[in-house]
Amino acid sequence: MLMAGVYTYLPLGWKVINKISDVVREEMNATGAQEMLMPTLQPKNIWDETGRWESLEEVMYQFKDRSDKDTGLGATHEEVIYDIVRRNISSYKEVPFAIYQIQNKFRNELRPKGGIMRGREFIMKDLYSFHLIQADLDKYYNEVTQAYKRVYERCGLQSKVVEASGGIFTKKYSHEFQVVSDAGEDNIIYCDKCDYAQNVEISKLKLGDECPKCAGSLKDGKSIEVGNIFQFGDKYAKDMNGYATDKDGKKQPILMASYGIGISRLVASIVEIYHDQQGIIWPEAVAPYQVHLISIQQDNKADKVYDKLVKAGVEVLYDDRDISAGEKFADADLIGIPLRAVISTKTGEQVEVKKRGGDDVKMLNIDEVKKVSKNF
Amino acid sequence: MLMAGVYTYLPLGWKVINKISDVVREEMNATGAQEMLMPTLQPKNIWDETGRWESLEEVMYQFKDRSDKDTGLGATHEEVIYDIVRRNISSYKEVPFAIYQIQNKFRNELRPKGGIMRGREFIMKDLYSFHLIQADLDKYYNEVTQAYKRVYERCGLQSKVVEASGGIFTKKYSHEFQVVSDAGEDNIIYCDKCDYAQNVEISKLKLGDECPKCAGSLKDGKSIEVGNIFQFGDKYAKDMNGYATDKDGKKQPILMASYGIGISRLVASIVEIYHDQQGIIWPEAVAPYQVHLISIQQDNKADKVYDKLVKAGVEVLYDDRDISAGEKFADADLIGIPLRAVISTKTGEQVEVKKRGGDDVKMLNIDEVKKVSKNF
Repeated sequence: MLMAGVYTYLPLGWKVINKISDVVREEMNATGAQEMLMPTLQPKNIWDETGRWESLEEVMYQFKDRSDKDTGLGATHEEVIYDIVRRNISSYKEVPFAIYQIQNKFRNELRPKGGIMRGREFIMKDLYSFHLIQADLDKYYNEVTQAYKRVYERCGLQSKVVEASGGIFTKKYSHEFQVVSDAGEDNIIYCDKCDYAQNVEISKLKLGDECPKCAGSLKDGKSIEVGNIFQFGDKYAKDMNGYATDKDGKKQPILMASYGIGISRLVASIVEIYHDQQGIIWPEAVAPYQVHLISIQQDNKADKVYDKLVKAGVEVLYDDRDISAGEKFADADLIGIPLRAVISTKTGEQVEVKKRGGDDVKMLNIDEVKKVSKNF
Repeated sequence: MLMAGVYTYLPLGWKVINKISDVVREEMNATGAQEMLMPTLQPKNIWDETGRWESLEEVMYQFKDRSDKDTGLGATHEEVIYDIVRRNISSYKEVPFAIYQIQNKFRNELRPKGGIMRGREFIMKDLYSFHLIQADLDKYYNEVTQAYKRVYERCGLQSKVVEASGGIFTKKYSHEFQVVSDAGEDNIIYCDKCDYAQNVEISKLKLGDECPKCAGSLKDGKSIEVGNIFQFGDKYAKDMNGYATDKDGKKQPILMASYGIGISRLVASIVEIYHDQQGIIWPEAVAPYQVHLISIQQDNKADKVYDKLVKAGVEVLYDDRDISAGEKFADADLIGIPLRAVISTKTGEQVEVKKRGGDDVKMLNIDEVKKVSKNF
């Protein structure tokens, strides 16, 4: 922590961020979206067009630059992307399309809490889609909903899809993705069998009721919001004057929807769900490395195993520090890499392997370690 | 451009940024450095320890947050990384090490100019190394110098290494990496045969003199600063109280050096050097795609070629828009992807291929296109 709500990602944490980001990229690219990068520094004038310079005053960092110009830090990017779109899109031939970025966002939280769960500076994937026809927007909105569910699943999280009010960013049609956890700030009533859920505040359903979607039994509990998606419809077209001609040459509003996943909050959510008294238990897909190699005696036997595994494409964190075995085991449990591999005088030509979170210890030869770590 | 000195990287530009970043990552990792990410938001107090909150006032964005706390945007990260190091490093066993990030930096430039050449928000790789022994710092400093030269060379740029004063960031020992270009802001006297150069302002050498390094003949000209490296020595140890015990149990200052490459400025520099009247001519290593596929008639023949090339791992930008061949050719020249591949009724089962910046047009079959694009 550098200051309240502001954190450095050290090498292991940064690797996790990149693993999650790559999962997100794959799923977003699969919907046909393209990656780009928009600025953090933003001028007041485009935010005035939608009235959000004022309405987001509470959460947006706003200040004057050296030229006395009102400047804000990007808390979200609808205004910036819509400005690009209205300047470049004029025909139905150029829509639909979707574009996203993975980037630091900034929110002037009075009381940031929960570490990287709710920071002032956090990493977010934000996707924006543009359409001339509502049915087309609906279709893509559903595609992204499915893509989001795959992202969470690949990260080891069971997500619930909650109808939402849109909070301070929009009052239009929107959904939240929630993960059940006592560390959450939201209260939902949810189905344990399917992805159905509602916010307790607005739900007419109660604990034990039948799930309206799959006839399972409803539970309630705290949850973490790990994503949200919004249909803005023609709001931005009207506020920022974004129109394109349709096939018949008629001017139509360029519709927009936006879709966010809090990447750094996902890290925190995964840790909340995958841990024990000793430390983190990373799901394989997002683990910083696949194998945590520990050398007990100080010779070069483990060096050779390290080289072999790395050459075989296995991601290995190698602890060759001159400290006790007990300290190394404790750090391995704390860091939470899926497979612990130990080399000692007792292991001979083999490697002693244990899964993080499991109890079984196996003696494997190196080729078997390669296979195990690749086919988790 | 969103505002003066602040730009969006659209998908093609963003791909170039990523290509360059990956080259930089490979070369930094090869020196043993690890990647991480530090925050943009920074508290005044750590900058006060070195006196730089005041001395950088002119270029650093500084403002108060909602809690009335003085906050700055990262213009550089020596204070932040040194704070981490002093809190975590206490023994000679933990040094040397080097750590880097690729990240947006912010400078409150009064008159930003040259597009992304000198922006208010720009992408930078900053590396920091830590040592207990000066000879060890010198050795790593030289290693990074060589790594920097490889980065520029891989990006198609001939860099000159210039002894520098350190500018506003340090008065200590430092070097700049300069690329000769009329678009530059610096004036250097340089050797055409080796990497020797000096700033005109401080040099006692003049045009036509013999190069002190290789006996070539010196030229002068404008140049772009594409990187700089600084030896801070024990400055930070003294200012921020960073000490570790050496092998004999004696307290020693933790020495620091820092090393920067302007990634977004590199994009601008490459374009300044590789272009003609029609547009950009990207060097292969940093091109957003390897093949620009153009379909002239509207049938699915080009679709099949596209699928085959993508399956073979070739990066293809496919222009299947319903516009004239002339417009497509003009856009291909503008975008500057190394290989243009055209499919038309005239090309039969073959593909008409031309190198960007070249004149020769060749008829190739698809397997040959794969080979050409992979063995540029």
